Amino acid sequence: MSPVSETRSVTAEPLTDAAFAQFGSVIDTASVAPRPMNDGMARRFHDLAAIEVVGEGARAMIGRVEAEPYPLPLRLSLVERHPLGAQVFVPLSAAPFLIVVCPDEGGRPGRPRAFVTTRPFQGICYARNTWHGVLTPFGARQDFVVIDRGGAGANLEEHRFAQPWTVHLPGTA
Amino acid sequence: MSPVSETRSVTAEPLTDAAFAQFGSVIDTASVAPRPMNDGMARRFHDLAAIEVVGEGARAMIGRVEAEPYPLPLRLSLVERHPLGAQVFVPLSAAPFLIVVCPDEGGRPGRPRAFVTTRPFQGICYARNTWHGVLTPFGARQDFVVIDRGGAGANLEEHRFAQPWTVHLPGTA
Repeated sequence: MSPVSETRSVTAEPLTDAAFAQFGSVIDTASVAPRPMNDGMARRFHDLAAIEVVGEGARAMIGRVEAEPYPLPLRLSLVERHPLGAQVFVPLSAAPFLIVVCPDEGGRPGRPRAFVTTRPFQGICYARNTWHGVLTPFGARQDFVVIDRGGAGANLEEHRFAQPWTVHLPGTA
Repeated sequence: MSPVSETRSVTAEPLTDAAFAQFGSVIDTASVAPRPMNDGMARRFHDLAAIEVVGEGARAMIGRVEAEPYPLPLRLSLVERHPLGAQVFVPLSAAPFLIVVCPDEGGRPGRPRAFVTTRPFQGICYARNTWHGVLTPFGARQDFVVIDRGGAGANLEEHRFAQPWTVHLPGTA
């Protein structure tokens, strides 16, 4: 094992479509060409994420979240996932935010990866059943539009790490 | 008939839950009490609109729209509706925007009503099959998160008024 993988320290990477693809989608205008709408008065960037919802009475639900900032480096002791639905967060301010996800390894979260948004108003969609940390603004409170699943059934699984991880912004490790 | 109803002029009203209820929902934090989440680090305003999607392969879809501003008073000659799905718009800036909707009268749009948002980042959900005008920022370009229906089927009906309407902001008629 390399020394890096032995540590409990993770450095965030810039959020890109390719790097995030295994965890879900980046919701941004940078990756698709717009379609004109409303007689040319608007440009639509279409179908930016698959908001998968499954199970009894499944429906997509919209809400708002006001999230307090976390001190950095982030101490990460808990991740969660939603077996029945994807989850979308789009910030209502131009500030970046931190995203932590983990690959699944036999039903448990593997080594975390962290991302930081690189463009104003970039959002993300966690694919259904993807391990992820809590909504993590830093510096100041940030508000978000959230879209996720409504309906019957158990849609939350949590995992608490025996030892916490430390997540750094790039250049601050 | 009152003189007002004989004119082709409409003055926008402040957007409120009650006034907009017959056309859909206001998406805002003002009308519901938040639930704590993430160990008290965030407040969630839950399930703010019914994003109804029906028909073959129906799913909720997320996109972004960049909309150019319209000159006011607005000249309104076209409204549309979506028989298979609701449509959500949440602005990514604090500026107000104008919303035009019409009650249905036997399959055709009745007299338009107009609303102007009253709080930063207020969004709206047009209920499925509700007549509405195009996305109408004024003053400056405004970007929006849009959620609407993906899937097979004809999901657009347009109505062009024989004579256009004129829509004023409050206090400018």
